Amino acid sequence: MLETTKLLAEFTTRPDAALPDGVRHEGRRALVNWLGCALGGARHPAMGIAVGATAPHSGGDATVLGRGERLGALDAAMANCLASSANAFDDTHLATVIHPTGPVAAALLALAEGRNVSGAAFLDALAVGIEVECRVGMMLVAPPAEAELGWYLTGTAGGIGAAAGCARLLGLDVERTMAALGVAAAQASGFRQTHASMIVALVPGLAARAGLWAALLAEGGYSSTPAALEGTAGFAELFSRRAHLPAATEGLGATWEILANAYKPYPCGIVIHPVIDGCLEIAGEAGFEPDAVSRIRLAVNPLCLRLCDRPTPPGAQEAMVSVHHWAAASLARGKAGLEEGSEAAVAAADIQRLRALVETAPDETIGREGALVTVETRDGQHHERHITHALGSLERPMSDAQLDEKFTIQAAPVLGQAAAEALRLAGWGVDDLADAGALARLARPAG
Amino acid sequence: MLETTKLLAEFTTRPDAALPDGVRHEGRRALVNWLGCALGGARHPAMGIAVGATAPHSGGDATVLGRGERLGALDAAMANCLASSANAFDDTHLATVIHPTGPVAAALLALAEGRNVSGAAFLDALAVGIEVECRVGMMLVAPPAEAELGWYLTGTAGGIGAAAGCARLLGLDVERTMAALGVAAAQASGFRQTHASMIVALVPGLAARAGLWAALLAEGGYSSTPAALEGTAGFAELFSRRAHLPAATEGLGATWEILANAYKPYPCGIVIHPVIDGCLEIAGEAGFEPDAVSRIRLAVNPLCLRLCDRPTPPGAQEAMVSVHHWAAASLARGKAGLEEGSEAAVAAADIQRLRALVETAPDETIGREGALVTVETRDGQHHERHITHALGSLERPMSDAQLDEKFTIQAAPVLGQAAAEALRLAGWGVDDLADAGALARLARPAG
Repeated sequence: MLETTKLLAEFTTRPDAALPDGVRHEGRRALVNWLGCALGGARHPAMGIAVGATAPHSGGDATVLGRGERLGALDAAMANCLASSANAFDDTHLATVIHPTGPVAAALLALAEGRNVSGAAFLDALAVGIEVECRVGMMLVAPPAEAELGWYLTGTAGGIGAAAGCARLLGLDVERTMAALGVAAAQASGFRQTHASMIVALVPGLAARAGLWAALLAEGGYSSTPAALEGTAGFAELFSRRAHLPAATEGLGATWEILANAYKPYPCGIVIHPVIDGCLEIAGEAGFEPDAVSRIRLAVNPLCLRLCDRPTPPGAQEAMVSVHHWAAASLARGKAGLEEGSEAAVAAADIQRLRALVETAPDETIGREGALVTVETRDGQHHERHITHALGSLERPMSDAQLDEKFTIQAAPVLGQAAAEALRLAGWGVDDLADAGALARLARPAG
Repeated sequence: MLETTKLLAEFTTRPDAALPDGVRHEGRRALVNWLGCALGGARHPAMGIAVGATAPHSGGDATVLGRGERLGALDAAMANCLASSANAFDDTHLATVIHPTGPVAAALLALAEGRNVSGAAFLDALAVGIEVECRVGMMLVAPPAEAELGWYLTGTAGGIGAAAGCARLLGLDVERTMAALGVAAAQASGFRQTHASMIVALVPGLAARAGLWAALLAEGGYSSTPAALEGTAGFAELFSRRAHLPAATEGLGATWEILANAYKPYPCGIVIHPVIDGCLEIAGEAGFEPDAVSRIRLAVNPLCLRLCDRPTPPGAQEAMVSVHHWAAASLARGKAGLEEGSEAAVAAADIQRLRALVETAPDETIGREGALVTVETRDGQHHERHITHALGSLERPMSDAQLDEKFTIQAAPVLGQAAAEALRLAGWGVDDLADAGALARLARPAG
């Protein structure tokens, strides 16, 4: 049997990890995108509750991005990842549907605040942690593994990636890194039934906390078992069926999964995105009148309906994974940002009217990044858009400039325009930071 | 489909839960046993590492039993359950092999320290939490479910029980209790590959923390999904195969699983206990000389070897789940307490010699609580003991007096004789405590 735990630990600790330039740049994109999302989610109701329930029992050595409170590093890792997940606006490794950056970046930033580590080391650990996270996820879902068991892979693989990143930043050796991976694997959790509730953001937050804690415990000498991931009663066996162990380690260091990470242009389930693309194009047509719409038909990949078939979402949390809502909202408003996912939008009469018109049909011939949107109006107009690759997919990636815009619309309302700009520049310039903790300090709101 | 989450929440919140006298007394037994084990594990190496890695990032509003440090309530729940699990000396619900009291009691005690709740309410919440925990476990492993998947049920069900207990102590309503159960279920984790390492105690600790946090989040309004336990991509579907949902709720409140809880007389895996019984009887025979032993044969239930087949444990952590070690140690020393499980005992030449002589054989005709022990000596003696029900099993339960003795040998070295006695009396008299937090205050070491 492959010694998966050991091989991943060896990768995590290899001293000569000069990352390819493309990997480093993708790490910066992931970081800037994540910082924006953490600020964009800082005021989400789930954050208010989670920080409120945790703060009386926590320390105060780390920053909660975009908020006044401080928490202990473990809980700050949790909170900052929860925030970055709260609006489903983060990023997606499409092969596993993991949202990879949150658990790793949040754990690393909370760790970096208390230890004097360079921005270059931080970026290196971020890329390595994301790589381990995505590799672990691929082991669980790559054929012959059954992919659709209902596990929430950001929760099951995220903590292991966070542990790897933190172990690397701490300079742990192979044996201690193996312990970190094992302690993180023992905390792996989360399933899809709790999507459409605030738990969808809690589980990634927990993964961030679990990974950081695992690395700190391993640093202290906590023991694990050598085959935590691959053993017969181990992680892969239990969190998958017919796990494909080689996917975790084949070509490790030669190919990089972070290059297959996609950034969301819209704050909702990624399988909805091609529908939004189509609706926004239609809404942008000259003379299009949302009030005149009489029929909306969506042909989508079956996965879209398995995850997001919610014709009448009662609130914003459920609307986040409702293809009906986002089709209606983007047709009604010609936009698909945080405002279109708000409680006000979910309750708005014009959007409700359109939502009730949405008809969905699964279509195996349509890829996961595609959709066929057909809209009819009372005066006999017929609008049709066939999207093959949604904006934000690997074929149509968000540009650096689009990521900048996405960052700013989230960060500026929380930090103010000037502070948001300083953080944005620090994110792109992370390699030059003498102390990576500066990223956290720049993300504290004034006053 | 059964509305398992809702039914368990209704049970948890029912206002008329005057518990039967037998249930209350079993709750007191579970509590006294747990307090002793938490103190007995307070100085375990795993505790030093876990508290050391956590304290710099934690609050200080709760007691770590038997230690000088204080932690935030969430982390104290973790630490106190970790301690009570660290020596594998705690308790076992045999139908599920859950060690039930730790996650629930540790969560409740940390909660009680910060809220003024009576000892009677504490005991009530403890029994209800343990009931929910064991019921959730039975749902996962009762036929037709496959029982032996490798999950660590104290970790997967423990947090849900802890959440139920805490929700009851907080007086949450049905809807908020459902949210607590769901948030706890989303944190369920742990698998057996990490047994024989310090993770075996970490996972129950995490369950305690997860359950308390779930209840606090639910109190604050955090949302979950109504079918977290029973939904198609929910807890039962993922943590079992062919889960038997009715086992969670049939006869709830009429029959009580806490009455099927067993307390360990020996600090090791419970499947080893009948072997120890046999070996201690043989060691106690007049004229028995360990040095003369030439052969040791153990016929045991197959589960014993599936979990504890470790002929040469490298250290105390692995020896805890080595039937070879405990047969040798109890024959060599005529005792099977914490000392016989220590690093010194694992390395002792006399025990090592006997360990190498142990031969094991699985025998389907022997029940889980039985063993056939055969010992031969160089001078031709032949000792044989057939144990059908180990001490501590439901057929031969530990008496209150035996639990007292077990408490004192663990608590007195940590607290001193007088303070240990005061805590013991407070445990048995928990119903009369105006403030259940007194249990924690009495468990602080002097100075």
